[in-house]
Order: sequence, then structure tokens, then C-alpha cells
Amino acid sequence: MNGAESLVHTLVNGGIDVCFANPGTSEMHFVAALDRISGMRCVLCLFEGVVSGAADGYARMTGGPAATLLHLGPGLGNALANMHNAKKARSAVVNVVGEHARYHVKYESPLKSDIQGIAGPISHWVRTTADAASVGADGAAAIAAARTPPGQIATLILPADTAWSDGGVVGGVPTISEYKTVAEAEIEQAIAVLREDGPTLLLLGSATLFEEPLEIAGRIAARTGCDVLAESFNSRMQRGAGRFAVRRLAYPIRQTVAALERYSNVVLVGSEIPIAFFAYPGMPSVLLPDDCRVVTLARPGEDCVGALAALAEALGAGHNTPITRQAAEQPAVPTGQITTQTIAAAIGLNLPENAIVVDESITTGRGLAPATAGAPPHDWLQVTGGSIGFGLPVATGAAIACPERKVICLESDGSGMYTPQALWTQAREGLDVTTLVFANRSYNILKSELANVGGGDPGPRARDMLSLDRPNLQWTSLANSMGVEAGRVETAEDLCVAISRGLESEGPYLIEVVI
Amino acid sequence: MNGAESLVHTLVNGGIDVCFANPGTSEMHFVAALDRISGMRCVLCLFEGVVSGAADGYARMTGGPAATLLHLGPGLGNALANMHNAKKARSAVVNVVGEHARYHVKYESPLKSDIQGIAGPISHWVRTTADAASVGADGAAAIAAARTPPGQIATLILPADTAWSDGGVVGGVPTISEYKTVAEAEIEQAIAVLREDGPTLLLLGSATLFEEPLEIAGRIAARTGCDVLAESFNSRMQRGAGRFAVRRLAYPIRQTVAALERYSNVVLVGSEIPIAFFAYPGMPSVLLPDDCRVVTLARPGEDCVGALAALAEALGAGHNTPITRQAAEQPAVPTGQITTQTIAAAIGLNLPENAIVVDESITTGRGLAPATAGAPPHDWLQVTGGSIGFGLPVATGAAIACPERKVICLESDGSGMYTPQALWTQAREGLDVTTLVFANRSYNILKSELANVGGGDPGPRARDMLSLDRPNLQWTSLANSMGVEAGRVETAEDLCVAISRGLESEGPYLIEVVI
Repeated sequence: MNGAESLVHTLVNGGIDVCFANPGTSEMHFVAALDRISGMRCVLCLFEGVVSGAADGYARMTGGPAATLLHLGPGLGNALANMHNAKKARSAVVNVVGEHARYHVKYESPLKSDIQGIAGPISHWVRTTADAASVGADGAAAIAAARTPPGQIATLILPADTAWSDGGVVGGVPTISEYKTVAEAEIEQAIAVLREDGPTLLLLGSATLFEEPLEIAGRIAARTGCDVLAESFNSRMQRGAGRFAVRRLAYPIRQTVAALERYSNVVLVGSEIPIAFFAYPGMPSVLLPDDCRVVTLARPGEDCVGALAALAEALGAGHNTPITRQAAEQPAVPTGQITTQTIAAAIGLNLPENAIVVDESITTGRGLAPATAGAPPHDWLQVTGGSIGFGLPVATGAAIACPERKVICLESDGSGMYTPQALWTQAREGLDVTTLVFANRSYNILKSELANVGGGDPGPRARDMLSLDRPNLQWTSLANSMGVEAGRVETAEDLCVAISRGLESEGPYLIEVVI
Repeated sequence: MNGAESLVHTLVNGGIDVCFANPGTSEMHFVAALDRISGMRCVLCLFEGVVSGAADGYARMTGGPAATLLHLGPGLGNALANMHNAKKARSAVVNVVGEHARYHVKYESPLKSDIQGIAGPISHWVRTTADAASVGADGAAAIAAARTPPGQIATLILPADTAWSDGGVVGGVPTISEYKTVAEAEIEQAIAVLREDGPTLLLLGSATLFEEPLEIAGRIAARTGCDVLAESFNSRMQRGAGRFAVRRLAYPIRQTVAALERYSNVVLVGSEIPIAFFAYPGMPSVLLPDDCRVVTLARPGEDCVGALAALAEALGAGHNTPITRQAAEQPAVPTGQITTQTIAAAIGLNLPENAIVVDESITTGRGLAPATAGAPPHDWLQVTGGSIGFGLPVATGAAIACPERKVICLESDGSGMYTPQALWTQAREGLDVTTLVFANRSYNILKSELANVGGGDPGPRARDMLSLDRPNLQWTSLANSMGVEAGRVETAEDLCVAISRGLESEGPYLIEVVI
């Protein structure tokens, strides 16, 4: 057994059965091993930004890691932006990065690069395998690192000769560490705050945005009168009719500051103190009022759900506490022009039960939250690291993770152009993804950002850097070029028809929504 | 004057008048400054891999650096792969990377990342600006670093508040260091070797592949009987009818070992000892025979051309030494099937004088060198760092650099899919680029690489990782989607017609060459 074979065995034994891949020469033994070892589904992506985004989407929907297979430093570099998002989402990912053979790496060959250096900023754990006999154990350690709560990026660098040499030993099934139990004192502190007077906010992080912990938060709110909000950008949020509905903090800084200024107390549950997405002249970085008291019930990586349950119990907010549930409600059928409002209505109206929504809609999506709140229960995935080019790859990974669910990808034209190659993988794998591309033909958000940072009104040269017209992108042609059916719509009525068509098909479908 | 304005002034004063950009919020002040300061052409790219590749192509054709404008760590990450190629090409590039305001960067905001860490592996010089007053001086230092011979990657990280704050001071015009003169002893050593018996190879690096130094190398060859070869992958090579023709070392390792085994002596002129592109089991890393004597006449960054001229003079190979010039010759008109040979003939036959050829043709291009050797004089640019997705962006930058010249981009389908967004910039800027995409619908090179590393014959799962069919990419639709006209050809006759058509148009044109 060579090192590569020992690694594939180790990954499969450790519960990793999907690998998103863009391999090269140095990864050929891993690829060859796939023919001899069953149990690993290897999904080819035509660009590594798709690989990393798909691994993120897969992790968000399954919890467990997928593997990636990447070609030396440049391959890892191409994966970096979406790996940054995955890191911020606290997704579990095991990267396998091929490297030159150990005896070769000292020479200045074309592909020689500092892989460890590139891996560092986007990894929690990095290791370069020393020899064929260590590959299996290192693979097991990578799985354990990736599955360290709440989820980590583990990068295993595999010199080619450690992959091709004999002497591979399958790694043991890794011991996975548990979420840390929250100390009694922290629960006591939260209890005290929630019993106090004064407006109190329970701020939920991603680990608590599933149906059950939301229900618990709803009971605490009902019992204590506190407000409940979620962070601005969440890995995954369960929402829709019948669930306890939680609004998210907004992206625009003034809106967030205004929403937070009334609170005397904030209890963090797997969340962080709200920080401005960007710095703006004259605006604060920390978005809570200066005199707001902050209490941490549970940190990410701690047992947030358990802590929330203990808190509820201590506050007398047991299972019988009645909570306010989101009513089933749908927007009116939209007609006429394509606008932020009619788009939101069309989506709210057509969202099927159990859908997975991957949201990179940026400015176009600002009306989506209210319009979809009362739709049938669904999951909502957001860009967590601010790195665009997230939507199409994450939708791809989510669809691989959940073949029985409908995936709806809400994509901006500017962002979508970062990683359009994901469409090809969707076509190849027959993934049930309906993508809406909002073609406003600009980096629309930057127009307001320019004003927010005090850049004034853009002149012709600045405007040119913010606009995607000249020429307009033809998203239907782009989708067709990668084997994905597509349609263009210019009215709200046609948009509704197109969404239905996309959802009815079992494969990928793209709708260019001309704004 | 704010920091951003001082930087734009400094860049323009320092001779940088082109900036390839994909800006975000943290770079808005740089963008706003473009409206107030003339002299900087800012070229929008829809993905940062296009930005870095375009800057590389621009530097290869002009020598001097272009600037790039990149958005925080993920933007730099997206630029990494082509910046790796630029670094290996020894291209001069000044990266300007926006960062959060200094007071904001301590918080864990979504886009917070280790920008210096990401910059390190692909930069020769990295600096984070301390305050608005330093921006100009740092910009000047970045230019000086980039223009340190033979060319370097300088990355200036610009916290947003240093850009927007007043107090900017325009940096001085940087002092540019000269190429280091080669020591007399090194020239003496080379003279001695070239006067000796035994087969001797003069191995030329990129700095000596221009018409004039090639001419000198030709005289040395005529006078001493040495052979002259170029490295496998070169930043830029001037070739064609009337010039001294130099073959390149090949990519396939067995071929290179065979070509080098006869030499007793090698004289390096701005080149490195030949190293295998990848390690292969049982094959050497260093491709020279064990007993070959290696003498370095000049290192990259030293005055290779001056050293070559001094060598020629000492050897009595003065201006009157007759050299063997490449005859003007053209392949026969190709007919019938599209094959490696008919493609090479079609290109050799149609290459216009003074063309810039950007070559990422990988396996399809293996017949190109002989078929184009006798074409009218032209420049040939290659992937220097082995990182694919090079062709379309580099062609874009080369066309910006040389608007009066025809650019021909030879692109593989697998590689082209890494950075197809370059086509949009070509359309927007009306660039005179004719792109041939060789659609063999596979990562064809990996089939032989799998065998070379001892991976055996691929089974169905491995084959799936090497093939780009299922679905086939439709390159004409892809080009059209970004505003680029395109045609598909399936015969050699049609290919010739299509190349002519592409060259006749003043704007971009893409030919999908179905193999």
C-alpha cells in the first residue's frame, strides 16, 4: 500500500466520503487510488475557488468535513478566498495539498512555492507529511483537527514521494473532541443579566440558529422579555413558518448602530461582539453602545445549545413556555418591473419546503428577509468572510450534501463572475440547483460604500471601476457554455414562471434577472 | 491631499500609468482619486487572477511595472496563482492591497485576514503603510523594489485610514538600481570553458532572449562551436525569421535528460541549472549529467547582456562574426483534420510580423516551435511558474502594453477555464487579441503524467478527474457571454480562415478549435 492509498482509506474510515478536487501531477497517486478503493466520491471542479466553496457548503449542511484535493501552492492560492469564508463560517474542511517530492523541493522548479506559508492564514492546522508511513496518521490527525468544535480548516501537505512510496499505514479512526461544556458561572452570569431590568439582547451565533436552539431562545425571550437577534452573517440559519423567527443584524453600519443603541445588556451565545464590517470615517468599530454590558454565555466551540437549554431551565422557560412562532405567510404575487421588492416577493412566494437558500445577493437581496420569513421551513446560508464568489460553489457543495433538497442560489452578477466554473460541476453532477443571477450590471454596493467612506460622488473614471456594463454580461450564454440551461427574465411575472421551472427540473437551471 | 491621492501621484510620477484593478470598499479612496489625478489608466478586471496575470503580461512587454489594486486578503489570494507566475518570470509588479483601517484591524471582522502572511510567499517586498504621511514614500519604495533588477513583486498594504486621511505627501521619484556588473573573474571562467574541448552548452535565461543578446550568443556559437539553448519556460523570447534561433529545453523529462547528456560544460547566462518540472520516481531532479561542469557567467539581476557582449569580445566573436540566421520559411497549407500538426501549421502560416504570442497551449502546442520558427519576427511568452490560468490574463496585459501589436493567445481548455473573465476586459478595452482555445476536452497532460509518476492506466474514477467532457464546454458561448465574438472550427482549413478573421479584426476574437 502506498501513502496515497493509506490516505484514501484513512479518510473513508474517518467518515470522509466526498472529495472536491482539482488535481495535478503531484496528486496523481491520490487520483489513481480512487480506482482501487471504494467509498470516496470525487467531484471535479474546474477551478479551486469552486473546490473550497463546495467544501464549505458541504460542511455547512453535514457538519462533517469533505476533503479537498489541491495542486501545490498556486492551487491552494486559488482556493484561498472561499477557504477564508469557510474558516469564518467555522466549517470543517480537510485540505490535501500535493507538494513536490521531498528530495525535489529544495530546487527552484517552476511550481516551487511556500505552501505552508500560503496555508497558514486560512488554516487552523497545517502539517507536511514526513514519509509514506506517516501519511495515514497525519490524515487521521487532519480529520481530528477539522472536527475540533465548532469546525476547523486542516491542511495536510503531501509530498509526492510520500504518496507514491510503499509503506503506507492506514490511520486510526480519529477521536473527535466534544464541544466544551459551559461553566456554571457563565450560566449564572447570564441568568443574572436576563433577570435584570433594562433592555437585554440575546445575540445568537451560527451554532444556535437551528430549529431546536431557536425554540429555546424563543422560550427565554417569552419568559424574560429580552430581544433575540442573530449576527449579520451566518453559516446556516433555519427559518420559516412555524419556527421562532430571529432577525439578523444588518450590514449597513448606521442601521446596525441604531438597532443596538437601546440595549443595556447583551448576552452572547456563540456570537461575537458586533463589529463593523468595514471601518468608516467617523463611525465606530464596535457597534454596541459604550455603556452596554456584555456577558458571554457560550463561545463558539463551547456547547452553545446545552448552555442555552440550561439557561432556559434556570429561568423557568421550560418546554411548556409558549413561544411566538412565525406565521405561514406569503407575499402577494408580484407584477411588473423587476425591483428589489418584486424579486423578494417572487422568491418568498416560490420557496419550497426544506429548500436550501445560498445567499450572495448583496444589495439586491436587502428585501429578502421579510418576504421569505413566512415561507415553508428552509435553511439560509450566507457569506461569512466577505469574500465574494461564494454563492455558486457553496450551492454546489450543499447540493452534493443534500441531494434530496432543492437548492436556490441567489447570486449577484459581480460576485458570480468570480467563480462561474461551479456551473459546470453542477451540470456534470446533475445537481438540483436553481440559480438567480441579479444582473444590475454594477458593483452596486460600492456606490454607497464610496459615499460611506467619504469618497464623494464618483466621476467618470471612478464610475468605470464600479460598473459591469460595457459590455453587459450574458448570463444565459455563460450558463449554456457550461451545460446549464438558462433563461432571462425582465418582468416579475416571468421571474415567477422561471423560478417554478427551475425548481421543477431536477438538474441545474439559471435565471438571469435583468434589473 | 489624502494618502490615496499622494499614492496615485507617486505612482504616476514614478512612471506607473496603468493599474489593473478589482477594488472594494477599502480601496474606494484610491478609486476616487483617479477622477482628480490624471495620468493613470485604470483597467477593471472581474477577478483578481486576471489582475495579476495582466500585470505580468504588461511587465513582460514593457519592463516597467504596472500597479494592481486588490481588495484585502481574499483579493490578494485570488491574485496569488498568476502572481506566482509573475514572480517566476521576474516581472516587476507593484501591488496595492487595501486593508482595514489601522484601528479596525484588531477586531475579528469578516474580512480580517493575515494579508502580510498571504503576501509573503509571492512577494519580494512587503510593507504595510503606517500613516497617511508615509503612503507616498512607501509607494516610491515599492516602485524601487519592483524595479530592482531583474524585476520584483512589491506589495504595499494600505490601511483604509491611511488612504482617506489628510496629510499625504507625494513620494519622490524612486532611484532605480542598475543591473549589477558581472565580475571579470566570471567572464574569464566562461572564456576558459568555451575555449576548452568537449561539448559545451550556453544556456540562456529570459534576459538574453531578445534580438540583440541572441545575436551575440549566435556569434559566440559561430566562433566557439558551442551549442545554445534556452530554458524550458521563458518570460519572453524574440524569435522568427532573420534572428538567431534558439531551441528551448523540453518539458518532458526524458527528452530533456537526453538533450543534455552530451554536454561536458554548461555556461549559465541568466539561467538556472536545469531542474525537473516535477519529481518522477526513478528520475533525477537535476537534469545535467553528473560530471558536467557548470559555470555561471551571469545571474538573473546581473547584466547578462553586457556579460555576453564582453564574453563575445574576449573570444574574438565581434560584430563581424557571421551567424546562422533563421531562414524565413512557412509550413505548407494544412488541410483536413485538426491535429497538433495542422494547428501548428495554421499558426506558423498566419503569424503576422511583430505578433505577441502568449502560449498556454500545453500538450496541443508541442508541435508549435518548429512550425513557427521561420515566421516573421515575433515575441513568445510562456507560463513560467506552472500555474495554469495564465494565458487569457497575460494576453490582456500584453495587449494593453502594446496596442499597436497583434496578440495571439494559445490557450488550453482546462487552463482557460481558470480565468475566463479576462475575455470581458478584452471586450471592454477593445483589445486586439485573437485567442485559440484548444478543446481536447481533457486535462490531457495529466494522462501522461499519471503514467510518468507510476500511477498506471487510469480506471473510470481516475479518468473522470482528467476529463472535461460531460458536459463539453461551449467556448463560443462563453466568449459571447462576455462580449467577445467567437467561432468554432473543426477542420484545418476553417482554422486558417478563422485565424485570419481574428487577426483582421481590431478587437478580441476567440476560436474554439475542436480536437
